[in-house]
Amino acid sequence: MRCEIVGVGTELLLGQIVNTNAAWIGQRLADVGWDCLRHTAVGDNQARITEVLRGALGRAEAVIVTGGLGPTQDDVTREAIAALAGVPLVRQPELEAWLRERFARMGIARMAEMNLRQADVPEGARYIDNSRGTAPGLIVEVDGKPVYAVPGVPREMEGMVERVVLPDLAARAGEGRAIVSRVLRTAGVGESRLAERLTPLWDAAGGGQVTLAYLASAGEVRVRLTAVGATREEALAEIAPVEAKIREELGEVVYSIDDETLEAAVGRLLRDRDRTLATAESLTGGLLGGRVTTVAGSSDYYLGGVVAYATEAKAALLGVGEDLLAADGPVSEPVAAAMAEGARRAFGADLGLATTGVAGPAEQGGRRVGTLCLAAADAAGTATSTLRAPGDRAQVRAWAVTVALDLLRRRLEGVA
Amino acid sequence: MRCEIVGVGTELLLGQIVNTNAAWIGQRLADVGWDCLRHTAVGDNQARITEVLRGALGRAEAVIVTGGLGPTQDDVTREAIAALAGVPLVRQPELEAWLRERFARMGIARMAEMNLRQADVPEGARYIDNSRGTAPGLIVEVDGKPVYAVPGVPREMEGMVERVVLPDLAARAGEGRAIVSRVLRTAGVGESRLAERLTPLWDAAGGGQVTLAYLASAGEVRVRLTAVGATREEALAEIAPVEAKIREELGEVVYSIDDETLEAAVGRLLRDRDRTLATAESLTGGLLGGRVTTVAGSSDYYLGGVVAYATEAKAALLGVGEDLLAADGPVSEPVAAAMAEGARRAFGADLGLATTGVAGPAEQGGRRVGTLCLAAADAAGTATSTLRAPGDRAQVRAWAVTVALDLLRRRLEGVA
Repeated sequence: MRCEIVGVGTELLLGQIVNTNAAWIGQRLADVGWDCLRHTAVGDNQARITEVLRGALGRAEAVIVTGGLGPTQDDVTREAIAALAGVPLVRQPELEAWLRERFARMGIARMAEMNLRQADVPEGARYIDNSRGTAPGLIVEVDGKPVYAVPGVPREMEGMVERVVLPDLAARAGEGRAIVSRVLRTAGVGESRLAERLTPLWDAAGGGQVTLAYLASAGEVRVRLTAVGATREEALAEIAPVEAKIREELGEVVYSIDDETLEAAVGRLLRDRDRTLATAESLTGGLLGGRVTTVAGSSDYYLGGVVAYATEAKAALLGVGEDLLAADGPVSEPVAAAMAEGARRAFGADLGLATTGVAGPAEQGGRRVGTLCLAAADAAGTATSTLRAPGDRAQVRAWAVTVALDLLRRRLEGVA
Repeated sequence: MRCEIVGVGTELLLGQIVNTNAAWIGQRLADVGWDCLRHTAVGDNQARITEVLRGALGRAEAVIVTGGLGPTQDDVTREAIAALAGVPLVRQPELEAWLRERFARMGIARMAEMNLRQADVPEGARYIDNSRGTAPGLIVEVDGKPVYAVPGVPREMEGMVERVVLPDLAARAGEGRAIVSRVLRTAGVGESRLAERLTPLWDAAGGGQVTLAYLASAGEVRVRLTAVGATREEALAEIAPVEAKIREELGEVVYSIDDETLEAAVGRLLRDRDRTLATAESLTGGLLGGRVTTVAGSSDYYLGGVVAYATEAKAALLGVGEDLLAADGPVSEPVAAAMAEGARRAFGADLGLATTGVAGPAEQGGRRVGTLCLAAADAAGTATSTLRAPGDRAQVRAWAVTVALDLLRRRLEGVA
């Protein structure tokens, strides 16, 4: 079964925004076994949108359109679909009431009349509730094929596609009704090594019903398990044994599930254990503290850090011994350990976490670009590790932040 | 004149990569006055690529294709264009020699034969030199309309489009031969206020020949001036008076031109003046140091910083007076000044730069989300400023880093 994706918006053509929606939907379609042979972006022009949709429906069994559902005059996706289907637009009293109520709830006493355009739907269309915005989505049957129209705002689009569009497509493909995904978040093992370990398990578990996707970023890999079933429970029941086997195989490599980031997982562990954290950074220059503090409420457990970029600063602010720096060089496990212990002391924190290494472009003191030395210190002692990150200066630094957070996470979980 | 953009690659359809190339090219086409009515992405399938190109050429006067020019069997853009033009692929001895020489220079003694596929071009095609990779680009005339094929790797694509494709399109539009852009990088003035100040100037300068584009990011706006002329010199001569008027109007708001980032400009100023820098951060949590150190070689002038996230850390590590913290609260200009001075002292640096503020989501001590207090200290004294950043937690923090760097830049230039 083939589905095409159409993005509507002159701002896409002008490059004012990048069409991330097409990539996101493309990935999800692949997960549920629909082929996607073409993405198209077209401007806010009714005739041209209709032309693109007609072409897409000629080649595919379904079309997903993003954008052009807002309240203003340049939002014409509704009109273009009505023209394609050869039906008029009709105002839905139910949608009108929903819009009025929604604006009232937002504290807007007098809704601009223009907003009622969002209550106009092609005759015979079904609409998709928007829990994250005011533009409803649409499902219109044209020659027995569905055209799904969803907003261009990624958060709103994603909600509708996950909740309604993918299950509808799955039902049409005759494979079931519910599509469920679980994301296992892992750190510390590369994508190809992970795939080597998981593929046999997946085969053995009769994983044919469950699709496995790997989404890699610097130092982390998310493993997404997706299943289609007659019901949500059935799909979850398909995933459960595969997930259990993967968790058994990977053990502490899995740090969290679904939406919880590594920095959020670390924050949760610190909060649960009532511990505080301080950082000491060299090659990451502050990015580690920056990432810890992306989490709202991180001031509950993060006291602060020292960026000791110059070698002398490692001695002066963190008390790293001059003899250690001279003997081992600033990129070494003993120095990382002394930095972590120094941060703990300087801030009176329960835990200290340190990064040192060679970000590049040039090697440093005989250490190659990408060399990372990390340390996590607490009252019981200090764990250290050395590894090599791939890529350029930016990638090496991003990698260092992730593996440092993962070392801390393992320390907090008692496995480092 | 209309141009369509076609992206080739199954990884685009599967959402493994986002089609940023289409946005980038769309922006550049708009600058040079070509309309773009459609972007399409299609997989690595020769027949489907040919079909998409045929459709695009039916609607537009030119087509730019990105991707599918690599050496492997799934790279079939060359074959698809040859089929479209109805000509065979022929191996270019000149390109073959260039490829062999290129691999030899990379230290690869025996080039895999497969790489010679990159020397095959549709009969009659011109090719575009690739200074950043091994895949040459192509210009093929089909029914008197040009099809430009460029690599999918953004850096390689951008080089070819700037250097060859845009000038060729300009020449075909009969408006000249050379397209030249200058980017004035500004900080401290919002996009709409900037536009209000520049539009009258631009009108007065007879700016019709020069297009003006605003590219905004947190706390910064890049103003891009583009002109088309018979020669590069002529285009530059068009830009010069507009640029001069804009620079006169904006004065020190312009911090740099073209590719130099704010952190690089600050690095240049520090290096030129032989000064060192230390940072003191609160709400930015390390992001300021992180951005300063994105610049390779920043260890020449950046000594380090303190992230004083907890209020006590501001007192303990930066010597901010407890009385000051009690009287003014941690989000205040006096505290920012004391932090900057404390960082200067702690690291023995010539300059200290500090951020404090409310990142959100909740207000803090009666200060609203987005409130920023900044300070830059040197031997002569301390400059401070207070402002409000828009947006959510991530935006407020990104904004704070930019305006802090800009305050330092102004201090170094003697205007703060």
